[in-house]
Amino acid sequence: MDQWNRRGNFGSSVGGDVNPDLRAERRTASFNVEKLTAILDGGADNTSTRRTVEAVIRGDPVFSRENQYFQSQNERYEAAVRKAVHLKEKMNQMGWTENGPEHQYCYRALAGDIAFNVHRVFKSSILALGTDEQITEWIPLADKHYIIGTYAQTELGHGTFLRGLETTATFDISTQEFILNTPKISAMKWWPGDLGRSATHAVVFAQLYIKGKCYGLHPFILQIRSLRDHSPAPGVTVGDIGPKMNFEHIDNGYLMLQNVTVPRENMLSRFSQVLPDGTYMKQGSDKINYLTMIMSRVGMLSSEVIPILLQACTIAIRYSVVRRQSKLNPRDPEAKILDYQTQQQKLLPLLATAYALHFMVAYMNKFYNKGYTEIKQGNFDSLPELHALTSGQKAFATDCCTAGVEVCLRACGGHGYSALSALPFLYTKVMASCIYEGENTVLFLQTARLLRNAAAKLQALVQSGTAEYEAWNKCTVQLLQAAKAHSHYIVVKNFIETVEELRNEAEIQKIVKHLCDLYALHGIFSNMGDFLHDGYTSGDQMDMVTASYLDLLAVIRNDAVPLVDAFDFSDESLNSALGSYDGHVYQRLYKWAQKFPANQQVSQAYENYLKPLFQSALSKL
Amino acid sequence: MDQWNRRGNFGSSVGGDVNPDLRAERRTASFNVEKLTAILDGGADNTSTRRTVEAVIRGDPVFSRENQYFQSQNERYEAAVRKAVHLKEKMNQMGWTENGPEHQYCYRALAGDIAFNVHRVFKSSILALGTDEQITEWIPLADKHYIIGTYAQTELGHGTFLRGLETTATFDISTQEFILNTPKISAMKWWPGDLGRSATHAVVFAQLYIKGKCYGLHPFILQIRSLRDHSPAPGVTVGDIGPKMNFEHIDNGYLMLQNVTVPRENMLSRFSQVLPDGTYMKQGSDKINYLTMIMSRVGMLSSEVIPILLQACTIAIRYSVVRRQSKLNPRDPEAKILDYQTQQQKLLPLLATAYALHFMVAYMNKFYNKGYTEIKQGNFDSLPELHALTSGQKAFATDCCTAGVEVCLRACGGHGYSALSALPFLYTKVMASCIYEGENTVLFLQTARLLRNAAAKLQALVQSGTAEYEAWNKCTVQLLQAAKAHSHYIVVKNFIETVEELRNEAEIQKIVKHLCDLYALHGIFSNMGDFLHDGYTSGDQMDMVTASYLDLLAVIRNDAVPLVDAFDFSDESLNSALGSYDGHVYQRLYKWAQKFPANQQVSQAYENYLKPLFQSALSKL
Repeated sequence: MDQWNRRGNFGSSVGGDVNPDLRAERRTASFNVEKLTAILDGGADNTSTRRTVEAVIRGDPVFSRENQYFQSQNERYEAAVRKAVHLKEKMNQMGWTENGPEHQYCYRALAGDIAFNVHRVFKSSILALGTDEQITEWIPLADKHYIIGTYAQTELGHGTFLRGLETTATFDISTQEFILNTPKISAMKWWPGDLGRSATHAVVFAQLYIKGKCYGLHPFILQIRSLRDHSPAPGVTVGDIGPKMNFEHIDNGYLMLQNVTVPRENMLSRFSQVLPDGTYMKQGSDKINYLTMIMSRVGMLSSEVIPILLQACTIAIRYSVVRRQSKLNPRDPEAKILDYQTQQQKLLPLLATAYALHFMVAYMNKFYNKGYTEIKQGNFDSLPELHALTSGQKAFATDCCTAGVEVCLRACGGHGYSALSALPFLYTKVMASCIYEGENTVLFLQTARLLRNAAAKLQALVQSGTAEYEAWNKCTVQLLQAAKAHSHYIVVKNFIETVEELRNEAEIQKIVKHLCDLYALHGIFSNMGDFLHDGYTSGDQMDMVTASYLDLLAVIRNDAVPLVDAFDFSDESLNSALGSYDGHVYQRLYKWAQKFPANQQVSQAYENYLKPLFQSALSKL
Repeated sequence: MDQWNRRGNFGSSVGGDVNPDLRAERRTASFNVEKLTAILDGGADNTSTRRTVEAVIRGDPVFSRENQYFQSQNERYEAAVRKAVHLKEKMNQMGWTENGPEHQYCYRALAGDIAFNVHRVFKSSILALGTDEQITEWIPLADKHYIIGTYAQTELGHGTFLRGLETTATFDISTQEFILNTPKISAMKWWPGDLGRSATHAVVFAQLYIKGKCYGLHPFILQIRSLRDHSPAPGVTVGDIGPKMNFEHIDNGYLMLQNVTVPRENMLSRFSQVLPDGTYMKQGSDKINYLTMIMSRVGMLSSEVIPILLQACTIAIRYSVVRRQSKLNPRDPEAKILDYQTQQQKLLPLLATAYALHFMVAYMNKFYNKGYTEIKQGNFDSLPELHALTSGQKAFATDCCTAGVEVCLRACGGHGYSALSALPFLYTKVMASCIYEGENTVLFLQTARLLRNAAAKLQALVQSGTAEYEAWNKCTVQLLQAAKAHSHYIVVKNFIETVEELRNEAEIQKIVKHLCDLYALHGIFSNMGDFLHDGYTSGDQMDMVTASYLDLLAVIRNDAVPLVDAFDFSDESLNSALGSYDGHVYQRLYKWAQKFPANQQVSQAYENYLKPLFQSALSKL
């Protein structure tokens, strides 16, 4: 493999046997990898469905991600639209439905690299907020892709603080229409996905005004582009907000409205209605609205955020047993970098975190499904706890995953920084998750409002004469810490319970328990100050924690590769030159680099700037 | 400004007065900003030279960064080459020299967005490692850009561990030539900048073999591309390694050598020489080699890394007094986000860090210049300390700046994630600095080898029968912590000394002392465990630290904007819609987004995939 062949090249480049260093790691696994995969998938049936879906996606060239890292933003967007349109046909062909298990596995297989994700939010908001008539009118059109919708809530000047949104919808009794306006630049809708270049319709949130009185935020369905030629509707200014750190395939957009009118029927009216004479009526409970937010948070964690950490761990750990650097023992060959304690300390607690968060999300899904059934039956009891849990876990998990993927990237050194490792893509993508669906600091503070001790401190401040809002602001740094610690505790607790449930699988229970212990000890090790502060733990006890933690690193190191193999990501969904199953890292980096378009043609920079330099040199030498 | 004008657009978009919220922050500055700028520049003369250079760069359209965020990788590379060629002409015109102060300010004004940076390393390696004859032969060619060079050391399989490099150079007595080879795929040169598409020559490091014996790593000058048509030289395979997380303007490359021959004279021979009969001779001391490494570390920190943190703080702090979100007091208008304690806690310790590191690098520059003079006179005494200091500080500062820029990005919420904020660019750029010029973990461990306590622990382990290499590996996690703490301590110490030197500027000394206190307290606050562990500090004392730390946040918050204004970055060098001096954040985001090329034309995705959908819809509706 490593010798020159007659074409002056290195062997067959990629393919063939697995790299021997990686093979050796698998030979000594202490457990059955396939069994652990089934546990992680929630059953062997799921594993089998997932693999079927992955094979279908892999077999279709339209879904290929082969040249993704070489594509321009525009090419990424076009490919994503093409995939979205094609996936719909494919699913019809295969008999897969949007609510079936296959759809979610498609998303995983495509690594989310597909358009019309906000079109789904458009649909679910109509389903949640629309009357039965509105659902009957709009959903079939959206389902057939006759129209493409977006969800326009966030504005240039307002994200988290919904009451501050400034778009207005004024009811005109004489015409029976709502007149929508963007009164200030900060009121422009900004960020909605699928809006910049694709959507024909939008659910727009605006402050409702009737006879000069404001009734707060309400949702309206607007057509924003012509179905004939895609030109903006009258009074609509719409476009793309430009490049971002990632999500190049998504056309996040802006939207300005100048006296745009929609009929009275276009206000989504399940929970509040405007009668022809301008009477405003509230009806039913809109508590169920929370469920939409809870659902999107559970959804984003399980299909987007946590899998990114699992992928990054897979890439970094496989690479770390193929890469050799320096010598541990001067008489030995160069050591695998995973044999260095510093590398173990970077990657193995993350591996434990990946398992911890995966199990946490499995628990949240179960809890959510139970709550959903109850709520459908009119029992809203689980709603507050579900909301608090998902807020805290969203912030906690996205923080952990973002920090973790960065560690994976840096642990791979220079090659981690290459786009071909996939790690820059994963990192810049997961970082967004800390910001969207609720900014993390704000979410932690929501969680903190539950917390008893914080309440006591607040009370003391208020009693001492501080205004309540001021007291809250003065406590937020500590409240934030408390909320993080609380979310962390829930994850550890759930991990321990998961280990207990594995009692019928002794080998697997043993290794998963090691991961659980490592996760818990690492949590203490990294937050030593909190444990030492009130004398809850002594310095000597801390030394014991540190010693056990370091011992566990060595134990888990032996199973590190099988533990990431169990995540069962295909090479196609990883799309990483460093992380493939066969471990042919260097061959793949070289093979992929050769496909880089700049290597296929003479650069204009040479023709325009370098050639004149060198020709003048030749004439003078 | 915020009202619709007759063209259905928002006022004059950008320009005119400063945003009133930002203006208010400046009116209450407790010190003279211009004076602090002069101190940060190391004198008012430097400030004046810098501003002259910035005006020249700003006035020349070739150097414009206006559309940078919309450019493809290829366009970025072409623009960087064009700028490099043009800058040389400009400097000749202006009478600026490469070693003069203007050159460094050019780099700052261009935000490093220029090609041929490794060409400079090519030159300095010849100056350091070449004989006088070699210098006379090559340097004038390189100076005139008749040839473009690169520095090819790192290989696909080896970075940090230089002894492991695998490229070979075998001396052939019969032809008086060295034959260079890439014996394995992992031996390919990989990463050198300017190599992928530009360079005609390279300094290549290879293991020297004479009569079958290996003499270790030596540098050779190779021509790699034709000066006539830029085609690869015989036996040379060369290309671009493909996209990275940033540095799109740089053509990092790969290089494979198959029996490439160079004359005996092409081995750089200041310190070792091969005679015609194959005799190997070492001569002189190559200690001075360390100086090159030290110089590049000081250089990268002062011209690349620390300024990025200063820029990120400027952007995030200015934005945080323009952005308003939610209410602190229910009766007030929405609050500036910098008035929230959580936002202060994110940004103000970073502002203090920015000052701390800026002063640290100023000290390092002084120490380096003193050492350089002594070394030129044959006195190598300061070399070990300089090396230890720069290794530790390189790792410490790049870690701090990377973490810090991430905080700035996330503290700006969604708009921070937009490329137009400049923060994604700054973050992905500064992150590379943790990896190049010595990977940080490795550098910290080098620093740790100095440290006395670590030595004691190691000794105990070795005495208990553990092999020394194994003992070292078992201690590295703790050694790493010790090295970080040591580097941190040096920065605090230097900050305190800098404050003392400001005794003639009372107002400035006062605010800088606040920053110094905040920096020190934040260091304790964030590493509480280390201080509590051995009872060195009690829990009660920690509560006092926390209280003082929180109080200081409120004090520094009042001067936050003047403190970033003092860094004196021009709008052009920041290139951020969020961070401009006038604070017209929303207007600028909108104006820049409108220039996005995707908003200027109908997308192919519409023509190819969406139009067919909607036309089929229209025919059925």
